[in-house]
Order: sequence, then C-alpha cells, then structure tokens
Amino acid sequence: MKAIQGNVLYGQSGGPTAVINASAYGVIKEALRHTDIIPEIYAMKYGIRGALNGELIQIRNQDDADLEKLPSTPGAAFGSVRYKLKDFSVDETDYCHLLAVLKHYNIRFFFLNGGNDSMDTCDKVDRYLQREGYQCQVIGIPKTIDNDLPITDHSPGYGSAAKYIANTIMEIVCDTISYPKSKVAIVEIMGRHSGWLTASSHIATHNGSGPDLIYLPEIPFNSEQFLADVKRIYTAKNRCVIAVSEGISDQEGHFLGLSSRARDDFGHAMLGGVAHSLADLVSEKLGYDTRPMELGLVQRCASHLQSKVDLQEAIMVGRVAVRRALAGDNGVMICIRRKQNDPYDVSYFTHPFADIANGEAMMPRNMINASGNGLTDAFLDYVLPLVQGEVKPKYKQGVVGFCHIK
Amino acid sequence: MKAIQGNVLYGQSGGPTAVINASAYGVIKEALRHTDIIPEIYAMKYGIRGALNGELIQIRNQDDADLEKLPSTPGAAFGSVRYKLKDFSVDETDYCHLLAVLKHYNIRFFFLNGGNDSMDTCDKVDRYLQREGYQCQVIGIPKTIDNDLPITDHSPGYGSAAKYIANTIMEIVCDTISYPKSKVAIVEIMGRHSGWLTASSHIATHNGSGPDLIYLPEIPFNSEQFLADVKRIYTAKNRCVIAVSEGISDQEGHFLGLSSRARDDFGHAMLGGVAHSLADLVSEKLGYDTRPMELGLVQRCASHLQSKVDLQEAIMVGRVAVRRALAGDNGVMICIRRKQNDPYDVSYFTHPFADIANGEAMMPRNMINASGNGLTDAFLDYVLPLVQGEVKPKYKQGVVGFCHIK
Repeated sequence: MKAIQGNVLYGQSGGPTAVINASAYGVIKEALRHTDIIPEIYAMKYGIRGALNGELIQIRNQDDADLEKLPSTPGAAFGSVRYKLKDFSVDETDYCHLLAVLKHYNIRFFFLNGGNDSMDTCDKVDRYLQREGYQCQVIGIPKTIDNDLPITDHSPGYGSAAKYIANTIMEIVCDTISYPKSKVAIVEIMGRHSGWLTASSHIATHNGSGPDLIYLPEIPFNSEQFLADVKRIYTAKNRCVIAVSEGISDQEGHFLGLSSRARDDFGHAMLGGVAHSLADLVSEKLGYDTRPMELGLVQRCASHLQSKVDLQEAIMVGRVAVRRALAGDNGVMICIRRKQNDPYDVSYFTHPFADIANGEAMMPRNMINASGNGLTDAFLDYVLPLVQGEVKPKYKQGVVGFCHIK
Repeated sequence: MKAIQGNVLYGQSGGPTAVINASAYGVIKEALRHTDIIPEIYAMKYGIRGALNGELIQIRNQDDADLEKLPSTPGAAFGSVRYKLKDFSVDETDYCHLLAVLKHYNIRFFFLNGGNDSMDTCDKVDRYLQREGYQCQVIGIPKTIDNDLPITDHSPGYGSAAKYIANTIMEIVCDTISYPKSKVAIVEIMGRHSGWLTASSHIATHNGSGPDLIYLPEIPFNSEQFLADVKRIYTAKNRCVIAVSEGISDQEGHFLGLSSRARDDFGHAMLGGVAHSLADLVSEKLGYDTRPMELGLVQRCASHLQSKVDLQEAIMVGRVAVRRALAGDNGVMICIRRKQNDPYDVSYFTHPFADIANGEAMMPRNMINASGNGLTDAFLDYVLPLVQGEVKPKYKQGVVGFCHIK
C-alpha cells in the first residue's frame, strides 16, 4: 500500500547498544530528505511508553550539533523502556491510547528500534492499526547486542559489543598472565540463551591472547567435563582463562547463574553470578586460586569502542527503514543479508514480524568446537567482518562527546 | 658518581597499567641510543623474581616490529610479580642471588618500574649494592594507576586509568538514565587508600553525564549521611548514580568492603564488594532498586583507551631514567613536575627513594567538596590535562595488536 503523507514516530526499546542511536540518526537523516512527504519527525520519550502517553520529542527542536553526536552517544538517547503490550484481544486500553496519539500527531510512519520483544510489539501495533483501518507504515529496526534475532544475518549492536568484549578480554588475559602463577580467571559475559557475545571472546584467542575455554548456552554445561578441562589447561599452561555466558544451563536446562528469582519487566529471569559459582567449584574441587569477574553493563554501551562496520550498518538500517516505509512496506523488520565476506558486503531486505517476534537465533553447532568448549573457524568467518574498523569519536575534555536530547 | 660501561636490566613490578610497557619502550629506545656505554639490554622475566633467579629476557632477541607494539600492549609484557624483599640486615639470601646475577650479566643500570612497594625494593637493592661496593645506577620509574606516589605531581598509568573510568562511567550513566525509572547504580572503583581513581569519574559529571555522588577513602564514610544523600538525589532526579572507592572506611577506620581476610603477596588486605554492601544498605533502608557493579580489572589495563598525555609521559619517564643513569644519578625515582596547565607542560626531576618508598599521596582536602561526596574545580584543574588526547592503536582483526615477548 502506497505510503501517505504524515509524520514519523521513532522509538527505542529494550536495552541499549553502542550503536542504537546511530540507527536513530539514520532514520532522522533519511526522513529529513523527504520533507515533502514527512513534515515532522518525532521520537518517543522512553520508548513505547512515550507513544502511549503522548510524550513525544520533536526532532525539529534539537540542535543540529547535538544530533550529529547521536552516532557516538551511548545509552538510548531518547529513552527506552521494557514494556510488554497485552494482546489487544484481551485488553485494548494501550492500543486506544496509542491510536489517539498517532492520530493527534498524524503519525504515518512508525519505527521501533529493538530486539525480539520489540518486534512482537511492532507486530501487535501493526495488526491493531490494520484492524482499525488507520494507515501507518510500521517498520522494525533491528537492535540487539545478543545477536539473537532470526532471519537477519546479524543485528546492529552485536559487532560493537563483540569488538568491546574481544578487546577487553584480550587486555584481561594480558594482565592475568603478567604473573608467574596466575589465578584461574573466569569472565562472565552477557547472553541469556545464545552464545554470540561470549563466543566473540574467541577473537582474542585467535589473536594470541584470549580465553583458553569458552562455555556457551547452546551446549549443556557438564561440571565434571568443565573441571577436567580446567585441570588439563592449568596443568599444561600454568594459567587458565575462561569465558562463560551468563546463560549456561545444566543438562536438565537449569540456569547455573540463577541466583535469585528476580525477573525483569518482560518476565525474564534475571541472571548473574555464574562466574562466582564456577569459581567456587574450581576452588573447592581443584584447589586453584580463582578470579571471577563480570564484564558488566559496559558491554552494551561502550560507544568509545564501536566497530565501524557495525556503526555504518546501524545507520543504514535506520535509513533503509525510512526508504522502505516510503515505498509502502509495512509489518516488516529490516534485515541484513551477507552477500560475501571478502570483501565484506551486505544488502538489506525486509521480513514480516511474525517470524521474527519472540524468535531466537542460536549459534549453529558447526560454529562451536566438538568438545563444546571453544569456537571453530566457521565462527571466525562469521564474526571477523563484523568487528572491523575503528571509529574515532570526538572527545571533549577527555570523554566522548555525546548528544543531550531536549 | 659517573656511570661505568655495562648493561641495562629493566623490570616491571606490581599490577600493570595501560602504559607500563610504554615506559619499557622508553627505556629500550633510549638505551639503544647509547650502545657505546650500554652494549646489552635485559628485562627481568616476572619482575624482581627474574632478577633473583637469573631469568632474563634479552631485548636483542626480540623482533623490532614487536617492540614497536610495546606502547599499546596491555599487561606487563615482561611479566611482573608482587614480591617483598626482606631487609638485608635480616636475610641476605635474595641479595646474594641478585648480586651474582648482576655481576654475571655485567648489569650497571638497574631500572624497576613500579609503585610504592617497588621503590622500597629499589631502595634496599641500592643500599645493598653500595654496601657491597658494586657500582650500579639504581633508578625507579614511576607506575601506578592509583596515583599515590608522593613527591611526583602524578604517576604514569593514572591518566589512562582516569580516562577509562571517566568514559566508562559516562557510558554507564547514559545507559542507566535510558529508563524512566532507573535503579540506584553503585559503581565500585579501584583505590585502596587514595581516591584519585574514583575521583576521575567526576570528569564525566563535569561533562554532563556522571555520578551524582562520589565517595572517597580520604573522607570517613558515614552511612546516615550517605542514605540522606541518596534519598535527596533520587527524590529530586528520579535517578542516582554513585561512584565509590573500594577503599572507603568508616569513622573507626574499618574498610566497608573488607569481605574476607584474604591478603595479597605484599600482605595488603584484599578489598572488594563495597558496591554490594552499599546496595544492600540502600535497598534495606530506602527500599530503592539497586544495581551494584565493579569496574574490575580493565581499569588498569585498558590499552585501547590510553590518554595520549599519559602515554607520552610514560615513554618519557623511561627515557629520562636512562639519561639520568648515564649522567650518574643513583638511588632516585624519576618524578614529574607540572610547570603549567595552559598549555600543559611538565619537566622531569629525580628524588631519593627514601621519601617515596612506602609513602602514599592522598588527595588534598581542597580537591574534595565540603560535603565529602564530590569533587571541586581544584581537582578538575589537576586531572583534566592528564586525560587529554587519544591514541589510535593499530588493530589487527578487530583487536589492538600487542607485543609478544619471546
């Protein structure tokens, strides 16, 4: 259906990435090229919450200099939220509010920048608007450090997180092996169900200074095999550095890091503490000194260490979303197709929300080694192009200059 | 006393910094300019341990290309150790071994790159060699992320750690305030007795996205005042980000983060866990959701985010150490004098070990605000020049290329 004249509403959803604001930048820059069809651009304040209660940020009111800093700004510059829309067959309240806001601001282009849950939101919004006969091009813009969106080859946010993790763990390994007798270092990395983030530590191993053992959620964790692995490595090398995903689970599917019953606003169990659990195990069963650590929040917001490829793709998925919406696309997410690796080249395509919403892309078995404690060259072929290139952000007084949204 | 012809022995000591290998680079490059007086350059393998047992690394055997990567190499490239020499009046064993090694390799220039404890080692070695009548210029090269060496205006390693901390906490704050209702974020930063590292988070605050409250070891911690501070900020701003030094202690001088009785090889109590303790306090007394985190090991080895000023000074203290040794200096550490701030300029001077060994430079009271929960402009004037300038290290396959010492 041909797009009709109206305004853009762009929103951010879920946890930030190092490049989520680069996608916002892409949407804004592309929309500004079409002011004949798109008179105004709005952003949701705190994601879908802003769309429901009418708290919109007008891009026209922002300083140009500030907007130019968006690509290197960490966090979700317009605010984000974790909020799950009820099915509208159960409760229409949110949808009624949303429709009123869309009508009031004459929104005809609706972009949500997020991961699996956000695509579920997009899908519901799209179906509701269609049922109500309100024309609005609803397009999803992929964003996740976890890289677990299906259909797309990879998602913006992953490459930068992978680059940060690879460099940081390289530094940790160089630090750890500085001493004649090093502790068993256990580094906990984000990733609830998929191992993409933890796997990226293998880039450091491939470059000569990375973890000796890598454990991913895709492979059921076996404590006895783990202890045998650690003992073998430590005996041979007088060191052992382990990268472990927060989401590893045992043969019965129980998370090892499930230290509490806390849940986030989407109802997902909050994980954490698996490095400490494994450290206790190593110390108790093998008697080695250990150093458990968590890479923490910075994994998802290290704008000072973006991958240039990731940054460029993050901007492009924003631009392509606007172009596809103008071309009349609807109910789809922008996906990335890898055309070739050498030289690396991609194209963009769209795919309906239904297959993407709430789906999860796990690592294929051939990217993980036979023992389930490391990665293969198939993974390197996949990941290396995504972490290429450095961005030199502008610094002000020692820190990266970032955008202050009014 | 005029230096005599002989070889260089360089060693690294204590915890690494992001620029300790830059000082090694400075020593090596400068020594190579004087092959008439210095035929060979050796490095201790694992610090003083290598000097005691004769495990030396010959610089001549290293690849030039590898040595050129030293300035951006994290960790202690030649290996480090925490080892406290006994006083030689009590036990001469170590000293006898050392002297034998020095004689065997005709070492006439002895450089140890470290902090307070290392200058104590230098002092003992120097006094012993003098007593034995073995001429060797013993020079200390400053290195500490903690910035707690006295006499010198600041120490190489601090500027880069401060830059890393400022940027990382800026990113954490941007991430934290992405949500409408943010948790009370408590970020634990290294620093046993002095607050320099934790204070550097104020650079982010000064730039508009930093902690609201900063607690340092220099100010006795008062729980009631802390809770009142947190409540006031959270009520006013719907957010509260706290930077806290691992080394804060209560009015009686007891460390808040002293979670175990573990001690490191120098006998210092191992700290950690203060962020979690404070989070429990906030959650129990104020009922707010909290997010405690530790910046962790990367603070001291983030070679991917060096301060250019720090890097250049780290190289210079290595170069100056060689020059002063050749000029006959002995029993001294290289110190930095700040000549002016605008434009920033320094000179280098030497000072006897005795005043430096085991001394600790705390933050002066005028750099900390009256309430003891933040910093003043005096601190900004001090710290900002040290975090200026960015270095673009060479990346290989997505990670910073580093030096492999043979």
